[in-house]
This record gives sequence, structure tokens and C-alpha cells, in this order.
Amino acid sequence: MRLSGVGEFGLIKKLRDMCAGDSPGLIAGIGDDAAALKTGNKKILITSDMMIEGVHFDLSFTTFYQLGYKFLAVSISDIFAMGGRPGYFFASLGIPRSFKASDIEELYTGINEIAAESGVTVAGGDTCASGAGFVLSGTLTGEAKKVIRRSGARKGDGIFVTDTLGDSAMGLRLLRKRCRRLRSFSSSSPRLRLMKKHLMPRPRPAGNLPAITSMIDISDGLLADLSHICDESRVGAVIYRDKIPVSAELAATAKDLNIDPVELALKGGEDYALLFTAPPDIKTGAFRIGEITGKRRFIIDEKGRKAVFKAEGYEHFR
Amino acid sequence: MRLSGVGEFGLIKKLRDMCAGDSPGLIAGIGDDAAALKTGNKKILITSDMMIEGVHFDLSFTTFYQLGYKFLAVSISDIFAMGGRPGYFFASLGIPRSFKASDIEELYTGINEIAAESGVTVAGGDTCASGAGFVLSGTLTGEAKKVIRRSGARKGDGIFVTDTLGDSAMGLRLLRKRCRRLRSFSSSSPRLRLMKKHLMPRPRPAGNLPAITSMIDISDGLLADLSHICDESRVGAVIYRDKIPVSAELAATAKDLNIDPVELALKGGEDYALLFTAPPDIKTGAFRIGEITGKRRFIIDEKGRKAVFKAEGYEHFR
Repeated sequence: MRLSGVGEFGLIKKLRDMCAGDSPGLIAGIGDDAAALKTGNKKILITSDMMIEGVHFDLSFTTFYQLGYKFLAVSISDIFAMGGRPGYFFASLGIPRSFKASDIEELYTGINEIAAESGVTVAGGDTCASGAGFVLSGTLTGEAKKVIRRSGARKGDGIFVTDTLGDSAMGLRLLRKRCRRLRSFSSSSPRLRLMKKHLMPRPRPAGNLPAITSMIDISDGLLADLSHICDESRVGAVIYRDKIPVSAELAATAKDLNIDPVELALKGGEDYALLFTAPPDIKTGAFRIGEITGKRRFIIDEKGRKAVFKAEGYEHFR
Repeated sequence: MRLSGVGEFGLIKKLRDMCAGDSPGLIAGIGDDAAALKTGNKKILITSDMMIEGVHFDLSFTTFYQLGYKFLAVSISDIFAMGGRPGYFFASLGIPRSFKASDIEELYTGINEIAAESGVTVAGGDTCASGAGFVLSGTLTGEAKKVIRRSGARKGDGIFVTDTLGDSAMGLRLLRKRCRRLRSFSSSSPRLRLMKKHLMPRPRPAGNLPAITSMIDISDGLLADLSHICDESRVGAVIYRDKIPVSAELAATAKDLNIDPVELALKGGEDYALLFTAPPDIKTGAFRIGEITGKRRFIIDEKGRKAVFKAEGYEHFR
């Protein structure tokens, strides 16, 4: 069977079955945002992410600085999603021969920028020639007092997201149309802010970690990532369409372009906000969008109509 | 300046300057075989290696099983080179859409094979689509009681290598000529053994770690990797051409093909044997090939003629 048939999630499940991962030091293995190891008196988190030119980024509208920033940002988001504090970053680069040394220095300026903002130390990596496009593979370590997994959601928990959703997906649409690089975000135009959210996401940790029962970062899209939580926790969920947080910038731009902003918030992806579950009445700055239930997965619209959702989307309200 | 002008070593030096790496927990950073972190009561090693189709491997004569085995082997070699014991492996794969799921399963069979042989747990990673060729990026953790760096060689130390050299380079020549996949190594033909050394290197740790002052794994070739030791330790070295260990398989095949086997041993690379320095009289199963000196770097031939060596090679004996 071709991989395009199995899909990424199908493949990960197969590989998870092949790798026993039954080491006594391994708290969380394949299938979470990061692996968690108990080593000595500490819990260490490790996450790896690969970015490939033409698949994950487009240099026609991304500067090397922005790419470096985002390269580390996506890994920081994974560490936050496990309840951790990021530590050391290892960057492996497969570099086309046509690149200039200054391109890679600009990339590292972006990496160093978010590293400094987030207390990360850039500690090593590997560089090699690439025959095809630019390939980046990053590994970030972290530490956590309590490792928060995808599998801890319980019936009755509230479902929360830490930021507005869909901005990045709209930013990507605008960038694709514009198709040239943005060197400055100094203007306060709403469209620029959306494009910046796509190019340079700035992950932030969740508050009130001790109360959180499960967590994931929203990279595939809210419905897909909530489905991962439901799969791993063996629970259902109900979310309310009118509680999905949408920024004023997204609402205005979506209106201009005649797009439903909530659709982008549900399915867009690359938000790098956190989705977590916790007792419904906890104090948190996050947006509560629904509850964990026994089994079935519903989205309820403004008129109270229910639709079943899946990782790929939902069937339309009838 | 194009990267092809700066070269990989030039780029790594530049990046090392850009990344302060002044964190108190960081024992070794960019520029060693692995980074070493002090975390809690342990010393943790982390190494990342990237392999790109068409640059690092050729699927016309490499099976997915062999590729998986070697993918983890090169990282195990880095951990051994720091004096460590390997722990957890994270595999990130950029997969062309034309690949079959069974290709990736075969790859993991090879990864799992050497993982089991070496006590490594496969703990996570990332899979994504690749628009170009197959890309693998691996991160391996390890633990060490004493972290052995490239920078500890001292004048008067002996220079040792743990295995015969040049087999892998000869194996690669044979494979390139043959240009089809080898599914079995059951015959004991010398040429098959050389090809296996290239396709499935089996790293082994050095003995007598407490006595070792500096260490590196031979991936770029003996002269290049000894030059790295000299650079980092700010010392010179003299090695003896007739002490470079060459296998009977390499000697016989090189004779048939009218190639100088010692040239392959000096410059071939991908040996994944260890090169280390230690007091000259220590007990070890390794081959002693020379001594650390004050400053200059010489290779001395069978007739006592000296030539200066550099990472790229040496000027011919006159």
C-alpha cells in the first residue's frame, strides 16, 4: 500500500506497534507531542520536528530569519504541550549548494531570537549538503515537573484553548496570494498581523498546569488535534461553534474575502496554541470551548444543531 | 559567499560563534560528536545526524533494512565517541509519496535490529511528506560517567584506532560498480564483507575509558578526524603509515583492483571506528598508530620520509 493511502496517522500507529518502547525510563513515547524520559531525578522531554522546503515552507514568501524563528517555535510548542520548560536545541540542516552562507546566518539570527525570548540554548546539530530542497530537522529538550499527556482527559472536564484560532491559516492564504517576502511587520495592519502569526508563531505556556489533565498543541487544526486527545484518552467531546475564539483581524479579513472564519479556526492548523482539558471551573486565561463526554464527538452550532466531527472535519449541519 | 566555498567545517565554525552556548548546564556544545548536558545528577549526551537520499545513501544499492540499521549506527557511533552508553532514539522521516508503507516498515526492522543489539529504545520522532528525496534525521540520547571530548589530547599521548580502516570506502566502490541491492551476506566472500562494512557499520565502544584523553569517531576519514582532534586540543600529531590497520579483505581486494589500501584507510571515511588518544602504554585492544606532539602534523612512511598532513589529505612524499 502506498503511503498516500495509509496517511501519516496510520503510519505513526503502525510504527508505534513496531517499536515496543517498553523501557522502564520511558514515560511517554511515540504518539505524543514529545517523548518523556525519567533520567536520574529529572523528567526530560525530547521532541523532533522536520521541515521540508515545498512541503512545510515556501521561500518565495518566507525570509530565512522568519524560517529560523518558526523552526524553533514549533518545537517549543511541543514542549509546552507536555507541560515542560524548553532547554536545549539541536538543529540539523540539509542545505542546497546554491545557498549563501549569509542565508544560514540569517536563519540562525531567527533561531537565536526566539531562543533568547524563551530561555533556550542552541547546543548543536549537523549540517550537510542537500541535493534537493532545504531540509531542517530540529530536536528540543525540555524539563517538566509533571508530564502532561494526551491521554489524561476525563468525562466532565472542560475543553480549553489558549489563543484565538485560524489566524495562521488566513495568514497563509494572504501570503500565498502576495507571494513575496515581508521584511517588516512594523505597520499595524490586520492583514500583516495575520501573516506574522503564520510566519512567526510565538508559543506560550498554559497557566495552572497542576489542574490540566491532558494537552496537545494545535498544529493539525482544532478538530484533528481534539480528535487525538479523544483517541488517546478514549473519551468523547462536545464543542460549541460560537465559543471558538476568533480574532478581530481574522473576522474582518474573512468578511472581506467572503470566507467563514470559524471554518479556518476549526480546520486551519499551524496555530501553535494549546488545547487542554481540565476541571470546568478552574481559573485560567484560556477560552473554554466545550466539555469532555463519554464517547461521541459533536460540534453544536449557534442554533443548537449537532454534527459529528472527525479529525478531517465534520458532516454539515442539516 | 556560496556555501560550497565556505565548506561544512567553515560553516560549523561560523555557527558556533553565533551560538554562545554559555548555559551553565552545557558541558560540550557545537563542534563535538554530541552535546553533553549536566541535568540533575546525570550527564546526558545528545547527537543529531541527517541523511539525505543522493548525498548520504543510494537506494539503488541499499535496502531499506540496511538504511535503517546504518541510520541508527552512525548516531550510536557518536555517543560511543563521547564515552557514553546510548539510550533513546528519535527518528524523523521525510518520505516521498511514492514509497510503500512496507518500505518504512523494513526501515524500522533495521532500526529495531541495531537498537536491540545496542540496548537502544526507539522513543519517538516525526514523519512527513517529502517533495524531493527521502530524508532521515535521527537524534540519539546517551549517558556518560565521564564525557570524553575532542579537546583533551596531550603531548606524549599515544594515538589509537579501534578497528581496521578503509573497508567501508572500498565497500562503497564495489557497491557503486555493482549497483544493485544485496539482500544477504551469508557467503563469506571478502568483497561481501567489505560491502557489509559500508552498508551496516557496527559501532563498538572503546575499552579502558578512564585512561582516554580525547576521542572522535572516524566518519570523515582518519586524516580529517585526527585533524579535528588536533584543532580542538591545540596539539600536533605524528602517525606511521605502516601502523595503519588494514584488513586482509581490503588488502586482497585493493591488490586485485590496483588501489593503495592505505590511501583508503587514511582518507576513505565512514569507518565508524573510534580514534582516541591515551597514555601510550595503556592496556587496550586498539591499534596504536602514532603519538600526539607539540604542534606539527606528520605522517611518516615505511622509509622514514615525513609528509605534512591536513584534513583534506597530505602532500606526497618526495
